Amino acid sequence: MAEGQSRGGLRALEIAALVLVALASVAAGVVHYLGAPSLVAFSIAALALAGLAWTVSFATEQVGERFGPAVTGLLQSTLGNLPEFFVVLFALSAGEVVIAQTSLIGSVLANALLVLGLAMVAGSFRSEGKVMSFGRRLPNDTATLLLVAVFIIALIGVSVAADNGAARHVKAISVIGAICLLGVYLTWLVPYLRSDREHSRGQARLGFGSAATILLAAGIGAAFVSDWFVAELRPTIDRFGISAAFAGIVIVAIAGNAVENVVGVTLAWKRQHDLAISVIKNSVSQVAAFLFPLLVLCSLAFAQPLTFSIAPVFIVALLLTAIAVWQITGDGEGTIFEGVALVALYIILAAVTLYD
Amino acid sequence: MAEGQSRGGLRALEIAALVLVALASVAAGVVHYLGAPSLVAFSIAALALAGLAWTVSFATEQVGERFGPAVTGLLQSTLGNLPEFFVVLFALSAGEVVIAQTSLIGSVLANALLVLGLAMVAGSFRSEGKVMSFGRRLPNDTATLLLVAVFIIALIGVSVAADNGAARHVKAISVIGAICLLGVYLTWLVPYLRSDREHSRGQARLGFGSAATILLAAGIGAAFVSDWFVAELRPTIDRFGISAAFAGIVIVAIAGNAVENVVGVTLAWKRQHDLAISVIKNSVSQVAAFLFPLLVLCSLAFAQPLTFSIAPVFIVALLLTAIAVWQITGDGEGTIFEGVALVALYIILAAVTLYD
Amino acid sequence: MAEGQSRGGLRALEIAALVLVALASVAAGVVHYLGAPSLVAFSIAALALAGLAWTVSFATEQVGERFGPAVTGLLQSTLGNLPEFFVVLFALSAGEVVIAQTSLIGSVLANALLVLGLAMVAGSFRSEGKVMSFGRRLPNDTATLLLVAVFIIALIGVSVAADNGAARHVKAISVIGAICLLGVYLTWLVPYLRSDREHSRGQARLGFGSAATILLAAGIGAAFVSDWFVAELRPTIDRFGISAAFAGIVIVAIAGNAVENVVGVTLAWKRQHDLAISVIKNSVSQVAAFLFPLLVLCSLAFAQPLTFSIAPVFIVALLLTAIAVWQITGDGEGTIFEGVALVALYIILAAVTLYD
Repeated sequence: MAEGQSRGGLRALEIAALVLVALASVAAGVVHYLGAPSLVAFSIAALALAGLAWTVSFATEQVGERFGPAVTGLLQSTLGNLPEFFVVLFALSAGEVVIAQTSLIGSVLANALLVLGLAMVAGSFRSEGKVMSFGRRLPNDTATLLLVAVFIIALIGVSVAADNGAARHVKAISVIGAICLLGVYLTWLVPYLRSDREHSRGQARLGFGSAATILLAAGIGAAFVSDWFVAELRPTIDRFGISAAFAGIVIVAIAGNAVENVVGVTLAWKRQHDLAISVIKNSVSQVAAFLFPLLVLCSLAFAQPLTFSIAPVFIVALLLTAIAVWQITGDGEGTIFEGVALVALYIILAAVTLYD
Repeated sequence: MAEGQSRGGLRALEIAALVLVALASVAAGVVHYLGAPSLVAFSIAALALAGLAWTVSFATEQVGERFGPAVTGLLQSTLGNLPEFFVVLFALSAGEVVIAQTSLIGSVLANALLVLGLAMVAGSFRSEGKVMSFGRRLPNDTATLLLVAVFIIALIGVSVAADNGAARHVKAISVIGAICLLGVYLTWLVPYLRSDREHSRGQARLGFGSAATILLAAGIGAAFVSDWFVAELRPTIDRFGISAAFAGIVIVAIAGNAVENVVGVTLAWKRQHDLAISVIKNSVSQVAAFLFPLLVLCSLAFAQPLTFSIAPVFIVALLLTAIAVWQITGDGEGTIFEGVALVALYIILAAVTLYD
Repeated sequence: MAEGQSRGGLRALEIAALVLVALASVAAGVVHYLGAPSLVAFSIAALALAGLAWTVSFATEQVGERFGPAVTGLLQSTLGNLPEFFVVLFALSAGEVVIAQTSLIGSVLANALLVLGLAMVAGSFRSEGKVMSFGRRLPNDTATLLLVAVFIIALIGVSVAADNGAARHVKAISVIGAICLLGVYLTWLVPYLRSDREHSRGQARLGFGSAATILLAAGIGAAFVSDWFVAELRPTIDRFGISAAFAGIVIVAIAGNAVENVVGVTLAWKRQHDLAISVIKNSVSQVAAFLFPLLVLCSLAFAQPLTFSIAPVFIVALLLTAIAVWQITGDGEGTIFEGVALVALYIILAAVTLYD
């Protein structure tokens, strides 16, 4: 694309998409307050949420194009997790602790298994020798962050199962664990961002002011739509007899991560392997090592706090996911087979959750 | 060995061995139908089974010598697993689900720990600097396949332990898991075989027709002898007060894998490190990611189906074996110490199973 | 430091320290037999124990300075573990099995997480590009040794939880496991020591005779002080309402490893990365794969034997520690973030144990 043209503003398709997202968000509010059937209201809210996540991601890309893949990937996944943050917050305030927890865990697992797997299939398929290459540092750092999160979760889980003294202090241990996890995440984040010295790729087609305005609007929209989404989720679940765990692990996780999904896979397809891995891996470690502990601390204000005490099946799933993803991506190479293996793990997990 | 001589046919020792195997197979049938004491009948059947596995492996080598180590190793372990396949099938049809499961798991563990360990001790001992080298790709791919299998088994195991909804749908989840696992295995297998472009090593001493005839005869023999072996196993176990788990994990696993054992260790001793690792690793991943899911699907026809729901002690053993074998072989180097560590793991496992 | 001066004998500070340690050891005996308040007697014994461990380490360094980092690191951690050995032995003879076990496990975890973490923070902070480098072989060998120990512990743990046949033979399985673990450790140790061909660094300031005398005196002192330390531990625990697990995992582990702590971190700060890693890693693998199985065998003489059957929370902690430490150090590189992650794991573990 020519420099002159690319600075000239948004393309017609992009403008249409932004308008559609705005309309969907308004529609989600209208059907919510008019008391439409829960499935309709829920579906529109889910679509609007995915659209808002895309809007945030798009605006971030415009702001972030002066940075390298590390900062842009981080910004995109941070702000892209904004809807997720609101969904969990509203679920907690509505007393839906299982949905809050499973949507966080589902977000980690969907990104680490489904999205990463699809991106590796796409990236390897389009690479010479069917092997995609990427930097080894980020996958290994993500594995470290995931293992710290799993450590807290597994120790609390085994204490609860043994019903020992620690089981009666899950809240206190969760707070200590949350502070440790946030500390580790920030220690990682600062040098990671500093290392990103790549120059602007000069493709921003929106001024900083316009991009920031869109970001702000999308953020406020995400807060409202998340509220409606959570409010419609419970009646929808009850109506269709879905387990709360399946709703959190699969439906909320996929709706809330639709953007990372599409962006990550598209980037891999375009052979931008490092950027694809950056978007997906940052999303995984951010939810596990930033959003989760942050929400544990925020939830101290609620009647039913969020803790790191989760169902055994998800403890095992998180542990094995951390190990498998490290094993597969730690060498900085990906193949179609490895991508398929990750997707298979997600299907197996979804099947187990479906019957839960 | 001289080219002229080597093409001239089988050596006397090989002919004698083939005759012995045929005699042992016939003898196994005779003592079975004559109602000889179970220990005698069982021992002869076990010997005949090991001999048939060797015959299959030998004939495959003659057929396979025009290929590289990847295809030959795969062929040998595939056809070498034929007796294993029949043993599990007959055990299932006789309602011996524990023996069927433990002999599959035992086959994975015996190959991954005992045989690999012995091969690494032999290979390192005979290598310069006491360090043997081999390709890193296969050990890492095997680790991925094992982790997918462990993922299914562990999630089902923890669901059964928690007695949640998923525990009542173990059969359905096992079928989904089996299909996923087979899909991952085939996605791995196709490019793996394509990558094997090595030329013929020109040592085949048997025509294709003769080798194929031997293969067919050995295959049919394996089916019959497996039936007698399983039939004599139960009375032998009861007579000696051995646990079914020990019988499956140690006795059936070692009898059924006698050939991989001898072939793998011999190849390592002859400094053919990559071929040795190929035979052993292929056998491991094949049983875990091909034979096990295939038998889960086949067993749908039986009254007592085979599922991925196994005893907790074997879930933990499989998980730790997958991790330890990856840790030890993932770097493409092996030492005597590492081989001894793998053998020690197998001895510990056998000790735990003995008292089970 | 000048050669002439350095060979001239000990520095004033070192002599003062040795005198202080001797005084603290005598004081520990005096307050113990005079029946001083338990906290006072316990604190003095803990200080004396840490001092004795330093003395052992110091004298070893004088003896060991003619060797390379492998032998010196090993000698220091072996003799530095002498107080630990006596503490566990006296705890066992006093029937305090939980304290004996948790102080062994705590020693592994404190070294592998807290000390290694602090050393990595110090070493990375002072390295170019904030990344410290060290040999990959030792971290990977330590991971193998830890995994073998975890294998025994986890299989026994899951058998006890399932209350199957193996649960009634924990002692017999522990003895078999201890013999296997010792065999693996020795197989590793012999070539490891042989590989250490580095020349003398010529800094010994004590004759062999003097150093050996100090070593002997410190060893005998450690035996006595350990006895008093264990005797005062129980009343101190009861008085302050601390759990026995916390006492073992945190207090005994840190007091018993004060030296590895200071030595390891100081060496890392001085940019002697390989020596720092050698001291710490050898201490970890030695307690897990030498001291623990040795004490299991020694304890056969006691009424209440030491076995590998430990509380589930420590099984999970050991497994995840083995995996995390391997993941973080297996690549031969360390960063501040990785060091902080290890320290965070220790804080989380201490928090869980505190409430146990």
